[in-house]
Formats: sequence, structure tokens, C-alpha cells
Amino acid sequence: MAQYVYFFGNKYADGDGSMKNLLGGKGAGLAEMTKLGIRVPAGFTITTEVCTYFYEHGRKYPEDLENKLQVNLETVEKTMGTKFGDAENPLLVSVRSGARISMPGMMDTVLNLGLNDETIKGLIKKSGNERFAYDTYRRFIQMFSNVVLGLDSKIMESILEKKKKEKNVHNDNELSASDLKELVYKFKDVVKEQKGIDFPDDPYKQLWMGISAVFESWNVPRAITYRKLNHIPEDWGTAVNVVSMVYGNMGDNSGTGVAFTRNPSTGENGFYGEYLINAQGEDVVAGIRTPQPINNMSKKNKSDVSLEDALPSVYKELIEYAKILENHYKDMLDLEFTIQEGILYMLQVRSGKRTAKASVKIALDMYNEGLIDKKTAVLRVDPNSIVQLLYPSVDPKSKKDVIAKGLPASPGAASGEVVFSAEEAEAESKKGKKVILVRMETSPEDIHGMSVSEGILTARGGMTSHAAVVARGMGKCAITGCSALEINEKKGEIIIGERVIKKGDTVTLNGSTGEVYYGNVDMIRSELNDDFLTIMGFANGLKKLKIRANADTPEDAKVARNYSAEGIGLCRTEHMFFKGDRIKAVREMILADSKEEREKALRKLLPMQKGDFLDIYNEMKGYSVTIRLLDPPLHEFLPKTEEEIKELAGIMNVSFDKLNTKANSLHEINPMLGHRGCRLGISYPEIYEMQVEAIMEAACDFYSQGNEIIPEIMIPVVGIYEEIRILKAMVDKKANEVMASRGVKLNYLVGTMIELPRACVIAGDIAKEAEFFSFGTNDLTQTTFGFSRDDIGSFLPDYLERNVLKTDPFIELDREGVGSLMKIAVEGGKKTRKDIKLGICGEHGGDPSSIEFCHILGLNYASCSPFRVPVAIIAAAHAAIKNDK
Amino acid sequence: MAQYVYFFGNKYADGDGSMKNLLGGKGAGLAEMTKLGIRVPAGFTITTEVCTYFYEHGRKYPEDLENKLQVNLETVEKTMGTKFGDAENPLLVSVRSGARISMPGMMDTVLNLGLNDETIKGLIKKSGNERFAYDTYRRFIQMFSNVVLGLDSKIMESILEKKKKEKNVHNDNELSASDLKELVYKFKDVVKEQKGIDFPDDPYKQLWMGISAVFESWNVPRAITYRKLNHIPEDWGTAVNVVSMVYGNMGDNSGTGVAFTRNPSTGENGFYGEYLINAQGEDVVAGIRTPQPINNMSKKNKSDVSLEDALPSVYKELIEYAKILENHYKDMLDLEFTIQEGILYMLQVRSGKRTAKASVKIALDMYNEGLIDKKTAVLRVDPNSIVQLLYPSVDPKSKKDVIAKGLPASPGAASGEVVFSAEEAEAESKKGKKVILVRMETSPEDIHGMSVSEGILTARGGMTSHAAVVARGMGKCAITGCSALEINEKKGEIIIGERVIKKGDTVTLNGSTGEVYYGNVDMIRSELNDDFLTIMGFANGLKKLKIRANADTPEDAKVARNYSAEGIGLCRTEHMFFKGDRIKAVREMILADSKEEREKALRKLLPMQKGDFLDIYNEMKGYSVTIRLLDPPLHEFLPKTEEEIKELAGIMNVSFDKLNTKANSLHEINPMLGHRGCRLGISYPEIYEMQVEAIMEAACDFYSQGNEIIPEIMIPVVGIYEEIRILKAMVDKKANEVMASRGVKLNYLVGTMIELPRACVIAGDIAKEAEFFSFGTNDLTQTTFGFSRDDIGSFLPDYLERNVLKTDPFIELDREGVGSLMKIAVEGGKKTRKDIKLGICGEHGGDPSSIEFCHILGLNYASCSPFRVPVAIIAAAHAAIKNDK
Repeated sequence: MAQYVYFFGNKYADGDGSMKNLLGGKGAGLAEMTKLGIRVPAGFTITTEVCTYFYEHGRKYPEDLENKLQVNLETVEKTMGTKFGDAENPLLVSVRSGARISMPGMMDTVLNLGLNDETIKGLIKKSGNERFAYDTYRRFIQMFSNVVLGLDSKIMESILEKKKKEKNVHNDNELSASDLKELVYKFKDVVKEQKGIDFPDDPYKQLWMGISAVFESWNVPRAITYRKLNHIPEDWGTAVNVVSMVYGNMGDNSGTGVAFTRNPSTGENGFYGEYLINAQGEDVVAGIRTPQPINNMSKKNKSDVSLEDALPSVYKELIEYAKILENHYKDMLDLEFTIQEGILYMLQVRSGKRTAKASVKIALDMYNEGLIDKKTAVLRVDPNSIVQLLYPSVDPKSKKDVIAKGLPASPGAASGEVVFSAEEAEAESKKGKKVILVRMETSPEDIHGMSVSEGILTARGGMTSHAAVVARGMGKCAITGCSALEINEKKGEIIIGERVIKKGDTVTLNGSTGEVYYGNVDMIRSELNDDFLTIMGFANGLKKLKIRANADTPEDAKVARNYSAEGIGLCRTEHMFFKGDRIKAVREMILADSKEEREKALRKLLPMQKGDFLDIYNEMKGYSVTIRLLDPPLHEFLPKTEEEIKELAGIMNVSFDKLNTKANSLHEINPMLGHRGCRLGISYPEIYEMQVEAIMEAACDFYSQGNEIIPEIMIPVVGIYEEIRILKAMVDKKANEVMASRGVKLNYLVGTMIELPRACVIAGDIAKEAEFFSFGTNDLTQTTFGFSRDDIGSFLPDYLERNVLKTDPFIELDREGVGSLMKIAVEGGKKTRKDIKLGICGEHGGDPSSIEFCHILGLNYASCSPFRVPVAIIAAAHAAIKNDK
Repeated sequence: MAQYVYFFGNKYADGDGSMKNLLGGKGAGLAEMTKLGIRVPAGFTITTEVCTYFYEHGRKYPEDLENKLQVNLETVEKTMGTKFGDAENPLLVSVRSGARISMPGMMDTVLNLGLNDETIKGLIKKSGNERFAYDTYRRFIQMFSNVVLGLDSKIMESILEKKKKEKNVHNDNELSASDLKELVYKFKDVVKEQKGIDFPDDPYKQLWMGISAVFESWNVPRAITYRKLNHIPEDWGTAVNVVSMVYGNMGDNSGTGVAFTRNPSTGENGFYGEYLINAQGEDVVAGIRTPQPINNMSKKNKSDVSLEDALPSVYKELIEYAKILENHYKDMLDLEFTIQEGILYMLQVRSGKRTAKASVKIALDMYNEGLIDKKTAVLRVDPNSIVQLLYPSVDPKSKKDVIAKGLPASPGAASGEVVFSAEEAEAESKKGKKVILVRMETSPEDIHGMSVSEGILTARGGMTSHAAVVARGMGKCAITGCSALEINEKKGEIIIGERVIKKGDTVTLNGSTGEVYYGNVDMIRSELNDDFLTIMGFANGLKKLKIRANADTPEDAKVARNYSAEGIGLCRTEHMFFKGDRIKAVREMILADSKEEREKALRKLLPMQKGDFLDIYNEMKGYSVTIRLLDPPLHEFLPKTEEEIKELAGIMNVSFDKLNTKANSLHEINPMLGHRGCRLGISYPEIYEMQVEAIMEAACDFYSQGNEIIPEIMIPVVGIYEEIRILKAMVDKKANEVMASRGVKLNYLVGTMIELPRACVIAGDIAKEAEFFSFGTNDLTQTTFGFSRDDIGSFLPDYLERNVLKTDPFIELDREGVGSLMKIAVEGGKKTRKDIKLGICGEHGGDPSSIEFCHILGLNYASCSPFRVPVAIIAAAHAAIKNDK
């Protein structure tokens, strides 16, 4: 029979830090800290297995759970020397969620559980502090009513506010014991009135209700959304931690705080954190009061009072604990602690969330300190987050109209129109607008709005407030605690001194300084620092997949090389067709009435394409360049509306009728499945011949200049063996003609895109001709699912919302469906041609999960947009480290 | 080393009738007849292996071929008592092609080879008939010049015509020996003049040139087209038959003819054929002179002179041979013979081409005669051709304006506009017009025009002329030998007595009587006769696949049952949406602003759909009915143009803007890959709920009336497991609600279309929910190839022309690509659900090759359009007979 309940306390723990899956992150951390001799209040963890059981059995618990809980509760009582429900010396507990992976603020917590009109007496007696006891009591009722009984938290809050107004005070802690006592009974009346039940007085009833509420909170909408955003499986479940209370609200030698063993924003190796005197934990996290810096190093203002100054011995013990824990966990840690009358208790340890920049610095520092090895250092850098490092920052030379300054909660920079709610953010961003979400403070309900905003600006909250933590996780720029802002959501305006910012006005955030500017400000792309390049170097040494870039211009090619792309995996020749006035020649080619006319127009394009190729070869010296022959249907090069056709007819000096007829004749009902790719090459061989000529001419020039080059010529949309057979023969013929006329003998490769299900199935045949395959997973996803990327918007949101699809298959490669077809293709291709070169060149080439799949499949390279190259390099290294044992 | 050359003659043959692949049909037949003791001129066959060698080695022959040929030629000389190239007693030969499968008139033949100024003397001396000898000589030069030297045949023909005019005669055989001799030298001069070479006099040179010409003719365009139309592989090659000449042109006791052992048009068991006195074989086939009936039974006119009358003993021997051969081959045979001075020689035996009607009658008669078994009888009926039997015929009660009468060469009836050339036929039919091709006579060059015409009408030629044979093969109505027609192709008119029919005028052909009518005439669908029903019964007993029909209306269902469809495999509910003014309610549903409004509109549709289902259940008593839930995207139900939208807005009493906005919002760039099928079911569950309610309500009514019914509810476009899981649950819920409210408990099945590559790949998962799969191979072909059926016209003709594709994959299922995915789906589905019901319901369900593939795959049923049901039944029987050993 499963153990279900794991005790910890007084240096003994049933579990340990390795048991995250069973005990959740918090439970495992509490057990591990206890074993390490760190002071932790005694308690026990109810395992995630109970959560699973709870949901699988119609919200019932295992039969023997009650008994096991009772045994453990008694051990806690013994350890703490208190008694649950006792009127003399009552044990109070917190009941907290704790999943495998931290889901900050997503699930519920109840503190101070076990209080009633009897036990309050004991609390008063033991603490000798009536005000503290009633403050604790009212907190408990407020929290329990909301979390367990489902009462709207605003009701209690407004009563509290009313009381403060009545008493003419600003802060909760200015209320007296009798004020608070009054509130306790007022709150109980409200529960009776609103919920029709007496507030439960039995501590055991409170405890079981609290535990159930935490398990239930696994499935509240915001938690489901968070899991979806972070790809956390539904069936993991949460554990529940029941921990004896220690009180940060017992006076000025009490307090509570949050700390990081290193700076989570910059990665600097310095202890970093915030605390509040005379407060309980939720006050810090919720950002209701702006907290104080933990040490003098991180003071921002002269008036700040650090913990280092206020309680120096506590601070000393805290940094000792931090050292022990960091050396033990070998990672930057996020710690929660409470000080009860000068005694420090650790309440949580977990891996600290950090910015991409910090992740790089911390990983490298720890590697240099000998704490971790190279592989671990690379694994510590999340490929999805490092795009942050490539985000723009504010140009220091640009003119700025600073309107306010807050905390630099998440780095980067962003401009956008001001909106005041998550709903507005969503609505405006759907219209294609860039928005900055401005809130008093954010809460988990705001996540959907934050995810569509360019940046987040809050008036309250610190560097560890909800807004700050979430924005860093999302890689979005954020400024918090910008208290100069007077936000009037209803009127849709912000007042800052004498200025008024209205909804729709543009502001720019500088997440690295905390400055808010009016209007748009020039930005520059951040430079890659040495730390980053070092980690990239580690990753490059560890990965198996080569990372190439999709680049159509010499400029793109240069960016790609700067990011260490190892060649070009996809050069889309048609993109060159739009450059300058080339489109004119392209249109002449399309309008040609005969092969001869068409060839005439193509002759004009030839030198231009050749020049482009030569420039790209030059940027990519020594690396492979894969050039794809014309792919889109010809109608993409013609105008669509009558107006545009008329205009073009004038410019091209052809009749409207002729142009209109041509445009109509090329119109397709399903262009995605139309006359494109190699089908054009079969119908109009002269187009592909011109392109091959340009590729080979440029290669001959390049070679004659003393360079090595192996052009890779790629034929798109192949689905039938004869297509590649005919076109391979055409390419060979043309290439040989060019080389013969130039007296040069070059190696070149001819390959195909694999982007149709049929191509996957007959890959073995295609490989008879093709020397390489490049998976075009955009189109392969479209045809495998029968989804049009252009039209999917009408139902994809529904599909994601209802979990029909776990992720957008155009962002993260669908391993099950598309991946199965790729596997068939890889097997078929290798069977025919053992050393066939295999790559991917769709959008998925820059997505970490997709890259991992390509690694598992045994591809040779992934090609992605130039700015995603670093992401791809890290992801490829992760894939190799995780999968190659 | 391969044998390459096979001798036959004097009752001995190296080969036999089973060796068609090696010797070709003609060679195998000659060998077999020789072995049976039938009089055949001696000769030898050069095998198809030589043809393959010839093309694989740059048109060179195997080294030892010359020697082998010489040895066999000497054996022929010995057998015939003549000598090749001899001036005294010369052996002349015919050189004829002969592929595995008859390709009538497609490849080349040279007769009378071996003649020169020396051997002519021997021919004169031996025959004692100078006129005959020079007629033979001029025929040889004429034929050799055209076939071997590539001279336009019209040049020689015009010289011949000129000579006839000059001599004031009508027929070739009225020219004298000296006229013919003159022509011989004239012809030789023309060759010298046109081709710049002396006409080759060396008989061996003639022979080798003739052999090469026949091998070359395997790859002339018309032969390639024919093979493409008939799916004959390129690499089969042809054999070459070198046979000693016998002469049908030696006078009035000589002749040549073609016969069928039974009537190829009706199947009647009577000897049937045509012959010409004093003529060589090509005169009959080419239809230059209208031949005479072979026996009195088949006389059409009093003036006809039958072979039975003219040469009774020859006729007697001929029917004896026919009897021997038919008993031997156990099939209706097509015979070619020549009579040389009263002696009968058989030149060819092969299975006779026949109409569908004849094939049924002959198969059944032979079964009744004990010649063949049931399986053979069914195999004798070509499923592709039996659609002929379902073709319309002229309504005997309708008014007719008979303008001419010819030979009823191919049955059925057809109306269309008159065109005069294959090119016109193609051009007009591309415009969507129905055309009747009118020609003096047809030739292989006309095939492309014949294939697009509704019917063929020729002024010359008999029942075995090119036009007749080809039309019967194509299952097209044809009238030949309609000599009343004066065709002026240039002026584009036909004069019939005093009437003038112009290009574009409509005529109707009655292929069963030979009557030509002016204008359109009412037609009726031909009744299925008892013979056909008997064969269908045999087929039904032999096949494994059940054959169902795609039917959306009670009327279609009735037709399907009449053709013995075993249920409905696809009932498209959306087709019902267009009936009457239902489209109004459908549009209200689409325009609804809320779920409530949408449900209101759906309530209107419910009773209509329910009524339709009940009517269909009634027609299909005792058989399964598979009903597919809504499939097309909603925009298909809305108008497209501004004009139409305006009109509809008025009718529906909504603003133009609203309607226009809705139409625009539903517009899709690739509707094939859009918001359709089960994606609608997920977005708008109320639509599917209404349909399920209608299906189950109708089923409950039907059950309450004392009938058994198992409705099969089919969900389209499934590609993701969650889609079918969610919708299966919805169907079950709704079905149970209906059954509960009616107090009825029915069995029903829920299944899916398998029409996306992803569905094939994850079929194992889908089968967890789906109780049946129905392959939608139209869409599966679109997505697998990345082809849009609507747009493929821009390149499919190119693809077929250039053999990129062997057949249109929308007509014949692509076994290699689409088929591989189907196989994956079948395996996946069966692994999860051993007894899963498997079917196909696309267009391919009516195509014989596709049906065979479904049989091989182990599907349970194929569903096709009602009129294809008999085709499918025969095809399914063929598949079972051929594949289940």
C-alpha cells in the first residue's frame, strides 16, 4: 500500500529532494532542507498520488488516508510541542499546494488553519499578543472564506478597507486588536449570510476542507491555462503540504521574505531578496506592500531598511543557509523564509526563475566555480528564453521623454499602445496592435493578457511580484512598482503628476532600467556578450545536429553567420523576385504567350539571380548553401483586385483584358494544393533551367575566385518519383552545360523538399535521385492534418482551448502524426541511399521541441530563421545531452 | 542464351498459345493453330525480348539474331518449297507486329516483302497472273514506302487515284497489269525523288528494314497513346511475325476476311464476319471497300454475296476451323484468314473484342454449354465496359427525324453537335459541349477525338472497321458505313440527299439500329436483361467485398437497390440542405448571431432531415445505411458575388452589410483544408446534435413500424484523436437521449471517414472510439499528393502526357502512395479493434482497379454511385477470383 503521507521535522524526513514527482517541488524541498539540518517547521506532505486518486475516484480519498494523516499530525504535535485544536497551546498549520513544477500563485493556500474561538485563546496566551492573534484569526477567516468556501475576496477586502477608513489608518497593521476582533465576527457573519453556513469551527473539519480545496485548485481555470502555456500534463497532480505555522506577523522582530541566491535578473553572484517586517508570506508575493531590500548591496533608496541592518544575526544565518543550499543543489535558488520573533525558519527552496541573461551568467559562473559541468551548464540555459537576449533594447543615443520610473523587473524594451485590462490587451492585439498592459498589479487571471502584450507595467509590486515573475518567464519586458502612476481603469487614463496618458497612447518600457518613456523610442538589438558566446561554444561542442539558417539575402546570410549558422538550409529564390523592379521581368515572364517570350523575360532575371547567389556564397564561405527552385504558384506574382490589375496593365503596356484573363486563368481555389513547386518545373522547364544556370554560373565565378563551393539545388513539392527523375536530369544537363562552357568541374548536390505525405511514403524511390532531403514541415503539417495555415484561425483557438490539440502544430512539430510520416521518409531514404543528407527547413527548425525530435530522428541539420539560430544551437545541444546516453 | 526466334509451320511449332508474353498474341496464336493442325502459312516469330533488347541497346539487335533468323528462314523455305529472293519460285513474306495484347491498327505491317525486279518474274511465272503479280508489287512498294521509309501515304494514293481517273475505273482491281506495272516504277521514282534513295531491291535488306520498322512502330505516338489509354506498360514490347505470304488478290477464287465465332455486338451464337474477294487483308481492316457478309444468316441486302454462296467449301472449312478453335480456346474468337485460289489459310486467332452486352451473353452461353465455369464466365465480363449496358437507348415512343441509316457498329445512343475532326471534337468538348464525331472513316490518329465524343458516325467501313472496333472498346455508340453521307470537311457540312447538316447541328445516333436522327431524341435507360442479372448473380456469389451505394435521396437509394447494392455507404446530409427551400433555414442557421438563434434555425431543419432519413431507411430495408454528418465549410451555402448577396439579403430580410460581412468572414483561401467536417462539429456542436437527433428519431420511427435498423453515423475529416473522442461522446449522449425519450433501445454504430494522412497514421487511436472506418479516398488523394481536384487541370494533362503519372489518381486509386497510407490505417485500426468494419466511399469505390486494391487490403465494403454498382459488383468478383487462390 502506498505511503501517501510523508513527515518532515527536527532533522528527520520520510522523503528527500529527489522525490519531486511524488511530493511536489515544495514537499521535496522541505524534506531535503530538514535532512540538511536547516530549521524548517515540522509538517507532512500528502503525495500527488492522492491527488490522482482523488480525481479518479469521484473526489474521494484512499480509505486509510485519514488514519495516516492523524498519525503524522500527532508526530508534528510532538515535534513542535503543540496540539492541534488545543485551547492552551494550539498547533496552527498552513495547507499549501506543491506540484512537480512550480506554478506560482496558480493554486490555493490556506494559512493559520486550526483557529477558532477556543484556540484563539491559546494563541493569545502563548504569544502574549492579542493584536497579533486577532490579526492571524482575521487573516485565516478571510483566506479560508475565499479559498475553501469560494467567497469573492473583494467582499472581505472592502469590509477591511471600510474599517481602515473608519479608523483613519492606511495599513492593516495599524488596526488594533479590538478592530481586528470585530472584523473576525463581521467576517463570520458575512460567511453565514453569503454562503448560508456557519464558519466551520472544528479544526479537523477545517483541515480536511483545506486539503480538498488545494486538490480542487489543481483544476481551476487559471491553473489549467498555466499548464497549457507551460506544457504541464494534466495528470501530474499536486501534493498538499501541511506545515506548522510560524508567524512573521508577531511584531517588529518578525517578518517574512523571499530571496535568491544570485541575482535572478542579471545573474550576478550576490545574495538578493526582499522582505517585509511584521507580515505574513502572502503580503510579499501579492505585492500589496512594496518590500524592503534584504541587504545593503541591493538598496535602491537611502531610506530603505535592509534585513542586514534590521536583524543582522538573522541575516547572517540566512546567508549561511543560502550557501549550504546552493552548494547542495548546485543551482541558483529561490528561498522563502519567515522570522518569528528573531528566529529564522525556511519555508521553501526551489530552483530560481531567472532571465535568459541571468541563466547564462549563472551557468557559466557555476561552471567556472566547479559546481557544475559543461553539459549541466548548457542545460541550465532554456533555449526558449534566450530569444530575450536577442530582443531589442533602448538606444542610449535616442531622445527620450521619461515620464516615470519603476523597478526593472524583466529586461528588454518594448513599445506599444496603453491598455488597462487583459481583455483589452487581447482585443487590441487581435487587431494587430502592439500593446503595453498597465495594471495596478497583476494576478493569475491576467496571464492571457500578459502573453499577448509587448510589455507589462504595474504601479505596485516588487521584483518578485506576480507581474515580475511571470514576465521574466515569458521573456517579456516588465516594469513593476512604478508608484508614480495613478491608474484610472474606468476612465482609461493614467495620471502622472500633471501629465495624462490615455488608453491608446504609445509608451515605451525600458525593462533594464525601469524607465517609462512617452511615445516610441529608437531601439537597438542587444549585443551578444562573452558569457553567451562561451555557453554557445559549449553547446556547439555538444550538439549533433548542424544548425543552418533560412536566408534569402546576403544580409540575412551575414546575420546567420554572426550567430554561427553552419550554412544556409533554405534560400528561397522567389523572394529575390520581389526585389527592386525585378517583379516587372517576373510578370513579363508570366504573361509570355510562348516559350520564346518567356525565355526572353527569364534572360533578364538571370544576371540578377546570379548576382544574389554570388553575394550569398561570399557571406557563407566554406559552408553549404541550399537553394530552392521556384516554389509558389505564379499567381502570387500578379495583382488580385481589378484596380491593381488596371494599374499594372498601364505600367506593363498590356491590355487590361489580357492581364485580367491571365490572372483569372491562374486563379486557384486551393492554391496550397495548386500548380506550384516542381509542378511549375515540369510545366515550364525554362524557369528552372534559368535558375540552375544562375546557381551554377555564380558557383563557377566563386570557384574561379579561388573559393570552394558545393551548391545544393533543392526541388520543392516533389510527390511522385517521375518528378524528381525528370527534374534531376534537367538540373544535371544544365549544370554540365554551364560547367563545360566555363571549363570548370564542380561538385553539386540535387535534393528535394519532403513536404507531402506521398513523398514520405515513396521516399525510398525519391532517394534514388535525390542526394538530400529537407523536410518542409510547414506544408507537411498542412497536408498531414488537412489544415490550411491561412484559414486555421477559425478553429485553432477552439482546438487549443478545448485541448483537442495540446499545442499549435505549426509551432511545435506534431511528433505523432507528422513525425510518424517523417520517420517513414527517413527510413525509406536511408534504405536506398545510406548516406543521404537529411535536414529540416520549416519554421519548426527553430523550435526546441521540434529540434529535439529532429535529433532523435537522426537528421543531419536543422535550418531556421537567422535570429533563431542561437535558440536552435542550445536546443540541439539539449537534445543531444538528454537523448544520447 | 535466349531463343529469340520461334518457328511454326506444317503442324510443328517451337512455341504455343501460352507464350503470349514472349511471342505476342499473334505469334502465340499462329503457333497454337499450327499445332492444332490448322492450315497456317509457315513463318517465325521474333520475340518481344528482342524488342526490349533493341530499345535497351540503342536500337541494335542481339549478335546471334541474324544467324537465328537465317536458320528459320531456311526452314520456312523448305516447308513452303520456295526460296526468299529467288527469281524462279520466290518466297514472299509479311512482317507484322504482335504485342501481348492486341493493339489493333496501332503498329506497322508490311506485306509482300521480298519482291524486286527479279523475284517479280518468279511470281508471274508461278501464279501465271501478271496482273496479280504487279498488283502485289505495287502494294508492296506503296506499303514499304509508307511504313518503312516514312513516305506520306497520300502521295502514292493520289498517284493511284490519278491512274484510276485516267483509266476511268472505280476500283483498284479494275486496273490492268500494265497500269500496275507503270505504277510500280512511278512509285519507285517518287521514293527516289522524295527520300533521295533508291528503293531497296535486296530482299534481305527489305526484311531487316521491315523488322526494324515494326519494332520502331512500338513507339510511334499513336501506339503510345493507345497504351496509355489501355494501361499497357511501355516495357512489354512487341514481337515481329515473319510469315510466308498467301495471296487473297489472286483472282475471284481468292479473298481475305475477318470473322468472329459469335456475334461481337449481340453475343448471339452464330458465325459472323466479313470478307472481300480478290483483296489483301488491309483492304478489310482499313474499311476502304465495304465488305460482304460471310454467310447468308448475316446478309443485310439482297444484293450481298456471302462467302457461303461464293465459295461454299471454303466456308465449310472455315466454320470447322472456327469450331475447333472455339472449343480449344473456350472463348469467342476473332479470326483472320486468306483464301488463295480456293485454299483457306488462317492468319490470326485471338480473343474477339465484344460489346458489354455480347460479353455477358457469350459468357453465359458458354457457361451453359459447359465450356467454361462460373468464375471464368464472370471474368469474361469486363467491369469497365458494362456501363454500356446502363447507357441510354433511344426511346421507341419518341418522335424521330431519320436522316440516314448505317451499320449498328456499337450499341447505345448518343446526341451531340456535329464535328468533323478529332481536333474539333477535342476543342468543343473542352468547352463542355457534347459532340458527335463524323468522319469518312477513322484511323488511329483519331483516337483522341473519339475518346471525347459522345458517339462516332462514319460514311465508310464495316462492323469490323477501325471506327467500329475502337468505339466498341470504348463503350461508345457508333454507326459505320453510313454511305448516304456526303461529307465536306472543309465546308463543315454533310449533304444527305437534299438535306444539309452543318457543323454544330445536333444529331442523335442509335447505335443499336444504325439510324441517324436530326436533333435531340428522347432516351431511356436500358433495362437490365436476364443474362446480365444471371452473371451479376454469379458475381455476387463470388465476390468478398460488399457493394454499397452513395445515395443522398430515396430516389438514389431505390436505384441502388435495383442494382443490388447491399446498403448505403455514404449518405451526404448536406445534399439535403439544398432541397426545396431548406437552404433558407440553413442560411438562417449560418447567419445566427448566437447559439440560441442557431438552434432555432436548426429546429426547422430537423423534421426535414428526419423525413429524408426515414424514406431512405424504407428503401434500404434490411441493409445498413451510413449517414455522414455535415462535411462542407459553411460558406458553400452562401452566395459569392455581390449581386447574389444583395439579392439574398433582400429575401432574408437582413442587411447587405451583415450578409456580406458574414460571407467574407467565412471566406477561406484553401477551403479544402478549411473549417469543415468534424471541425464544424467541434465549433458548432448544435449542428451535429440536430443531425444525430434526426437520424435517431427516424430510426426509432422506423423501428416502431416493425423494422430492424442499425444506423451508422459517420464523422468526417477526423485527424486528431480528441476530435473523435469528443464527437463520439456527443453522438452517444444525443442518441441515448432520443432513445430514452422514445422508450426504444436500438443498436447504432459511430465511425469516421479516414480521409487525411494523419488519420491513417493514428488510426489505431481513432479506432478506440470509431466502430468503423470509411476511406474517403478523394480527399485522401488530395492531401497525400497535395493536389487540389479543383485546380489540377492546369498540370494533370501535362503529367499524364509526359507519363509523370500513369493514370489520373482521382480515377484510379494510387496504390503506391495513397494505398500505402490506407494499409497503415487498416493495420492500425485492426490492431485496436479486431472486428472494425472497413469500407471506402469515394469515387474510387466504383473503379475496378481501385476495388481490386480494396479487396486486397481486406476491406468489408466499397460504396459507389448507384449507376456504378453493377460495375463494382463485377469488379469485386474479379478481384476475389484473381487474388484469392
